[in-house]
Amino acid sequence: MKKLEHFQKELEKYGDVAMISPGTNFYYLTSLDPAATLERLLLLVVPAEENAFIIAPELYRGELENIPLETYFWKDSENPYALLKEKIKEIKPKKHVALAEDTMPARFVLNILPIFKDFTLAPLSPLISRFRMYKSEEEIEYMKEAARIVDRVFEALLQEGLKGISERKIAKRIIELIEEFGGDGISFEPIVASGPNGANPHHSPDERKIKDGDLVILDYGAKYSGYCSDMTRTVAIGDISGEARKVYEIVKEANENAFQTARNGVRAMDVDLAARKVIDSYGYGKYFMHRTGHGLGLDVHEEPFITPTNDLILENGMTFTIEPGIYLPEKFGVRIEDDVYIKNKAVRLTTADRDLKIL
Amino acid sequence: MKKLEHFQKELEKYGDVAMISPGTNFYYLTSLDPAATLERLLLLVVPAEENAFIIAPELYRGELENIPLETYFWKDSENPYALLKEKIKEIKPKKHVALAEDTMPARFVLNILPIFKDFTLAPLSPLISRFRMYKSEEEIEYMKEAARIVDRVFEALLQEGLKGISERKIAKRIIELIEEFGGDGISFEPIVASGPNGANPHHSPDERKIKDGDLVILDYGAKYSGYCSDMTRTVAIGDISGEARKVYEIVKEANENAFQTARNGVRAMDVDLAARKVIDSYGYGKYFMHRTGHGLGLDVHEEPFITPTNDLILENGMTFTIEPGIYLPEKFGVRIEDDVYIKNKAVRLTTADRDLKIL
Repeated sequence: MKKLEHFQKELEKYGDVAMISPGTNFYYLTSLDPAATLERLLLLVVPAEENAFIIAPELYRGELENIPLETYFWKDSENPYALLKEKIKEIKPKKHVALAEDTMPARFVLNILPIFKDFTLAPLSPLISRFRMYKSEEEIEYMKEAARIVDRVFEALLQEGLKGISERKIAKRIIELIEEFGGDGISFEPIVASGPNGANPHHSPDERKIKDGDLVILDYGAKYSGYCSDMTRTVAIGDISGEARKVYEIVKEANENAFQTARNGVRAMDVDLAARKVIDSYGYGKYFMHRTGHGLGLDVHEEPFITPTNDLILENGMTFTIEPGIYLPEKFGVRIEDDVYIKNKAVRLTTADRDLKIL
Repeated sequence: MKKLEHFQKELEKYGDVAMISPGTNFYYLTSLDPAATLERLLLLVVPAEENAFIIAPELYRGELENIPLETYFWKDSENPYALLKEKIKEIKPKKHVALAEDTMPARFVLNILPIFKDFTLAPLSPLISRFRMYKSEEEIEYMKEAARIVDRVFEALLQEGLKGISERKIAKRIIELIEEFGGDGISFEPIVASGPNGANPHHSPDERKIKDGDLVILDYGAKYSGYCSDMTRTVAIGDISGEARKVYEIVKEANENAFQTARNGVRAMDVDLAARKVIDSYGYGKYFMHRTGHGLGLDVHEEPFITPTNDLILENGMTFTIEPGIYLPEKFGVRIEDDVYIKNKAVRLTTADRDLKIL
C-alpha cells in the first residue's frame, strides 16, 4: 500500500480526512476494485494522522477480509453512518476540511454532511490528481500494452475493409477485436463517424453504411490492467474531395506540431496552442472547437487537460492525448489522436501510421 | 411531458425545488437520456411553482435544443453554478428544502451546496420512487418484452448445453443471445456460478468449466426500451446429490409461496416472509442470507424492496423480483428468480419453467 502511504503524507496539507468511494481512485490507492453499489455505503477513510480504514457492507467480507487495512463490516440491520460518526470523532481536526471522492453519489454525500458539520467538504480530485498524473514505469508498461492493442485493431480494420458496412457494425467489430487482442474491455464506446456524421465530434455510430468518397473517423480505446488507451484515425474510402485531402494534411500537421512541442517543462496550453496555431494558419480555426487533448490513465479523461488556458507544467511521467480535429458541418470531419507520455520529450504510445490511408 | 407535470404537482409537499442529473430519473421525467458526463454540469431543475428548465453544456445543444423545456446552454468559458444561482434566486422557498438526484456526483453536489445554504438538501428518491413504483400499461409492455427475451435465452441455453464450457464463456454467450433476441443490452453483468462457486450469491463468472454433478446458477437480465428484466434459473448437470435435489425443491417451494402471497394490499415484508418461512421450515434459514427481492423498472434495483422489514403496501402496477435462494458453503447454491407485477394478484413476467432441468 505504498501509494496509500504517499497519499496520506500529502493529505495533511489539504485536509484532515479523505473519504473515497469505489472507483479508480479507490483502486489506485488500494489495488482493490469492489463492484460499486448505490444501495450500500462502502468507503475508504483516510485520516491525515490516524490509520486508514474501510467501512463496508457485510456482503463484501469475502472480497475485503484479507486486505492489510482495518475493515468495519456492517450488516443491513446496522447504520453505517453511525459507525462513520464514531470513527470521525477520534480525528482531531486542524484544517476542518474533509475531502470527498468526486464521484461519490449524492445519496452518500447527503448522509455524510451532518457528521461533518464542523468541516468544509471539498473534492478529492485536486489532491489525488497530483499523484495520478505521474505514472510509474509499471503504469507506463500497462499503457503501452493498451496502446499496442488499439494499434493492432487499426491494422485489422484496414485489412478487413470498411466499405458497405454500417457504423454500428464497425463499432461492434472494434469491440470484438479489442478483446481478441487481449484488452480487458473498452475504455469508452467506440466512435465511428462517416461522411457528414464526422462533422459531429461526439457522433454515436448509427446505421449509415460506409461508401465511396467518405472520410471515416475511428475513435476507440482499450483497457489493459485497468489502464486506458484512446486513439483516433481518419481513413478515406476511394476517391475523396480535394478539400478533404487538404484538411487531412492540416490536422496531421497540427498533431505533429503539438507532439513536437510537448516536453518536460512546457505548459499544457503550449501544446494546445501548437496544434491550434497550425489549424488557425490555414483558416480552419473555428472548425476546431474542442481542446487538443486530455490526460489518461485509470480514467480515460483525467488530468492533465490540454486546453488553451491550462498553465500546468507538463513533466516526466505524464500521459495524455493529442487529438486535433477539423469538423465541417454537413461535409465531413477529420481527427488524428495519439496517446503520448513525457520522458524529457514526448513519446508516442500509439504508433499506427498517420499518413492518409485510402481503402 | 406528462410525467414531469405530475411530478411537479407532488413536489411542493417535499420541497421547493428538485435537481436531477442525467440517469434513469432524468429519463423518466423527460424521455431524454443525454450521456452523463462527470466533467460538465448538466441538470434538470424543477421548481415546485415556476417552470422547469435545463442547464446544459453547449456540447449538448444538438441533443437538447428541440425539447419543450427552457434550456440554458453554457460554454466552457462560463460558470454553470453562477447561472444556477441566478435562477435559484427567483424561487421563493416555503419549505427550505431542495431535493438532489441520489446519483449526482459529489463534484456537483459540493459546488451546489453554497448556492443552497438556506436550504436543507435531501435525496430525491423518496419522492420520485412514489411515481416510478407504479408502472403504466406501456411500461408493463416494455417489461414483458424484456422478460420474454430472458425466457428465450434460457431456452437457447438449454438447447446448446453447458457441460465443458467455462462460466465466463457462458456469460458471454448470454450477452450475445440477449442481443440476438432483441434486447437493447444487459441490465447487469450475468452471473454464472457453478458447483461450489454457486455458494457465493455475488460470484463473478470465472474460468471454471461446468462438469457432471454441478448445479449451475444462471442469473441475467435484458433491457428493452430502457426497462429491465432479471431472471435466475438453476440447472443440474447429469447426476446431482440427493441434498442438491432436496434444496432445489425447497427453493422452488419458497418461490411459489412468495408468489402466491404477493397481491394488491399485502406488505412487501409479507412476501419476503412467505419465502423465508418455507426455507426456515426445512432448517436452511441461515443459508438464505439475502432479501427475497427488489423492484425493477428503468433500474434493475429500485423500490419496492422485498425485505423482512419493509412494511410498504404492494399495489397494482408494482413490479419486483421474487428470488429466494439457499447457499451451502463449499458445496453449491440454488436460486430461482422471477419478475412479477401486481394486477390484483401477482402475475409472472418471466415464465421459463421452474422444474429442475437436468442437462
